[in-house]
Amino acid sequence: MKQLILIRHGESEWNKLNLFTGWTDVDLTEVGRKEAFEAGKLLKSEGYKPQMCYTSYLKRAVRTLNGVLEAMDMDWLPVDKSWRLNEKSYGAIQGLNKAETAMKYGDEQVLMWRRSFDVQPPALAMNDERSPRMDSRYAELSDSEIPLTESLKDTIARLMPYYKGIILPAFERYNCVMVVAHGNSLRGIVKELKGMSNEEIIKFNIPTGIPYIFEFDDQMKLQKDFFLGDQEAIRKKMESVANQAKKH
Amino acid sequence: MKQLILIRHGESEWNKLNLFTGWTDVDLTEVGRKEAFEAGKLLKSEGYKPQMCYTSYLKRAVRTLNGVLEAMDMDWLPVDKSWRLNEKSYGAIQGLNKAETAMKYGDEQVLMWRRSFDVQPPALAMNDERSPRMDSRYAELSDSEIPLTESLKDTIARLMPYYKGIILPAFERYNCVMVVAHGNSLRGIVKELKGMSNEEIIKFNIPTGIPYIFEFDDQMKLQKDFFLGDQEAIRKKMESVANQAKKH
Repeated sequence: MKQLILIRHGESEWNKLNLFTGWTDVDLTEVGRKEAFEAGKLLKSEGYKPQMCYTSYLKRAVRTLNGVLEAMDMDWLPVDKSWRLNEKSYGAIQGLNKAETAMKYGDEQVLMWRRSFDVQPPALAMNDERSPRMDSRYAELSDSEIPLTESLKDTIARLMPYYKGIILPAFERYNCVMVVAHGNSLRGIVKELKGMSNEEIIKFNIPTGIPYIFEFDDQMKLQKDFFLGDQEAIRKKMESVANQAKKH
Repeated sequence: MKQLILIRHGESEWNKLNLFTGWTDVDLTEVGRKEAFEAGKLLKSEGYKPQMCYTSYLKRAVRTLNGVLEAMDMDWLPVDKSWRLNEKSYGAIQGLNKAETAMKYGDEQVLMWRRSFDVQPPALAMNDERSPRMDSRYAELSDSEIPLTESLKDTIARLMPYYKGIILPAFERYNCVMVVAHGNSLRGIVKELKGMSNEEIIKFNIPTGIPYIFEFDDQMKLQKDFFLGDQEAIRKKMESVANQAKKH
């Protein structure tokens, strides 16, 4: 049997403030760090033994992974980090309050920016100080690779070379692989694995800090997928994410 | 200019208890975590920008590196972990108190085990539960690679393929590289870089949590090396490490 473990990072400072985050590199809250530890403790108690880990360039994901590995007592595991696992870029609405944005532009427009498959939020200006072009960690990327805004479709498109070229081939060597990333980059993986339609994936909410397990046979045919932990608590978490833009 | 930054992990639980640690995988103390953050803050304030990081398979080194990167706000940096950067194995005296061992075997014998270049402490038995052979993280190593005890000479011998084959070649791509490891694995790098004799390196004590900077010209010729920070505080730290085995 082969296993893929997906984990969405724990609560971040901007989740708490209800701001659009995207590629903005904000830290976890104390709650977020605790979620990471809880996820790690759960994986350890259930006997999961990942052999390779992947995460994004954003500290809320890296620090979630660090916390998971600490709690599992597996700090020594190899980790590969890639910008391709970053959250969807929310372009020029990054840093804006979700509820205020909904009041200003209307629930429907904001829901389009958050939950449509191929509508992009307004783009960052080329010289906007929030642009990843100003950030040395992306210095090796070409201009066409650095997003100034993204739809979910765009996010999935830049994720796929890494997912298909790096993560999936790792199963030739490893039986269990862990990916700690973001709501929308993980959606790309879930859509691919479960063959979901564009409409299905935009309605699918991945709860934070909950290990999402995919089990495959040795030919990498998906056998089952499930969230690890208290199913009622998980259902509530998924609902709360779905309702975030409606808080006003 | 090229830069190599060496950092010895912060205080561990067993440093605090004055026990021989070696390959035993003990955690940092709160003091140790603070040392890591202080090192990172100092590197950041002095403008260091590492591009690649290396650490061992032992959590006191990995967690020191994680703390340094958090404080530098550079969590996204690539990290490679290797057992070859692990501390010297202290064999069968791992877990014994340094002062008690000195009382039992005499200062001179313990100083030989700690500070001779080529004398090994007594070996772990093949089936000792403390043996790395029992630990899944070393499963891919051959029996001849897994140490049951090591002299400093042995430690340097297993470090060198990684130092010369992985770390040094990284300077073809990067200008600044950081290694977070252990007293004796770092001694191997320092000995090589400074051309120290066996006698010189055994007397050389690297303080915990202090960035040790090596500057090279573009042909990788060493220009200078220095510890970053308050020089008087650093001198005191180096003395305290040298005196550890004499506390009785």
